[in-house]
Amino acid sequence: MEEIVDFRDERDWEQFHNPKDLAISLSLEASELLENFQWKTSEQARDDKMDDITDELADVVIYALLLSNELEINLEQAIKEKIRKNRQKYPVNKSFGSSKKYTEL
Amino acid sequence: MEEIVDFRDERDWEQFHNPKDLAISLSLEASELLENFQWKTSEQARDDKMDDITDELADVVIYALLLSNELEINLEQAIKEKIRKNRQKYPVNKSFGSSKKYTEL
Amino acid sequence: MEEIVDFRDERDWEQFHNPKDLAISLSLEASELLENFQWKTSEQARDDKMDDITDELADVVIYALLLSNELEINLEQAIKEKIRKNRQKYPVNKSFGSSKKYTEL
Amino acid sequence: MEEIVDFRDERDWEQFHNPKDLAISLSLEASELLENFQWKTSEQARDDKMDDITDELADVVIYALLLSNELEINLEQAIKEKIRKNRQKYPVNKSFGSSKKYTEL
Repeated sequence: MEEIVDFRDERDWEQFHNPKDLAISLSLEASELLENFQWKTSEQARDDKMDDITDELADVVIYALLLSNELEINLEQAIKEKIRKNRQKYPVNKSFGSSKKYTEL
Repeated sequence: MEEIVDFRDERDWEQFHNPKDLAISLSLEASELLENFQWKTSEQARDDKMDDITDELADVVIYALLLSNELEINLEQAIKEKIRKNRQKYPVNKSFGSSKKYTEL
Repeated sequence: MEEIVDFRDERDWEQFHNPKDLAISLSLEASELLENFQWKTSEQARDDKMDDITDELADVVIYALLLSNELEINLEQAIKEKIRKNRQKYPVNKSFGSSKKYTEL
Repeated sequence: MEEIVDFRDERDWEQFHNPKDLAISLSLEASELLENFQWKTSEQARDDKMDDITDELADVVIYALLLSNELEINLEQAIKEKIRKNRQKYPVNKSFGSSKKYTEL
């Protein structure tokens, strides 16, 4: 996190990093990641595109960290809390081996 | 990470978690995060939607971790490497205080 | 539509155009469109990026048409039907001047 | 187009319809469309989700039309022009039967 914030501050970029544009950027990076799978199977993407996939996944997480920093979200706690909620939305006995959304279980 | 994988394995979901569908899911969660900013300023979103934003940001990072796990990407190393590349793409003297893309600098 | 299908068939691309990858492509193009607004106000994007916005919006609609063609969806009828549904979800007396989602009205 | 604008104006929604938020909305609708293919093959989506796919595709095109209206883009002309450009980027002899991006041809 420290290194990411240093990178940002050396360039005086915090002025652009309002949460709305950070959320847009996160979505754009997730799309660039997905682009590596366009017209491909998972295997083809893994064979041909691992370097790009690694770079884009890093970008996604960098923006997630910047956004959590900007909004003062404790990301580790948020993830633990979300897993707890997901355990309730997707009880094992209903969701075992099923890819259905919780609204359809 | 351990808790996320436990959650997945209790439900026998690894069968669905091919990298292509995980990349799709990551992109969908990033959109659900962005939805909290639709028709709003950053300030309005912060005032009205912090709980949803926190949940969706957690979902984004959960899928990023699942994808890194599936593709055996060392995420911390990937982020350090990406920052190193960004330092080259965006030298301080050219990008200070500018929101331009590196292709336009 | 005819011109789009000709373009596709001259290149023998229908083999790649399964609905799932077309839906991915549509989402990627919508992101590329959105990228023109990243770190910008609407006015700045309009001033600096109109050519790119026009091109990307065309791409979005081209993929929408290709997907409708592949799934034999009558797009004009689908739009009329969707507006009819939206009239019910967003009655004028509840939604006048409000940007709230129908689930919050 | 007329029907879409009527729907918007009856609800006094033009005030929210700045191009940046319309571009966000278009991207969100494209993601909702893609959600119908998450964890599914094209065939499974076609069998189980055609009504939702049709609705979401209509939403994508509705926002594309609203954005073109707001920015005074002639969509039909933009599409013709984009196909012309794509013919140059993807010459038949190089791109026949290939899913490669023009930058890799």
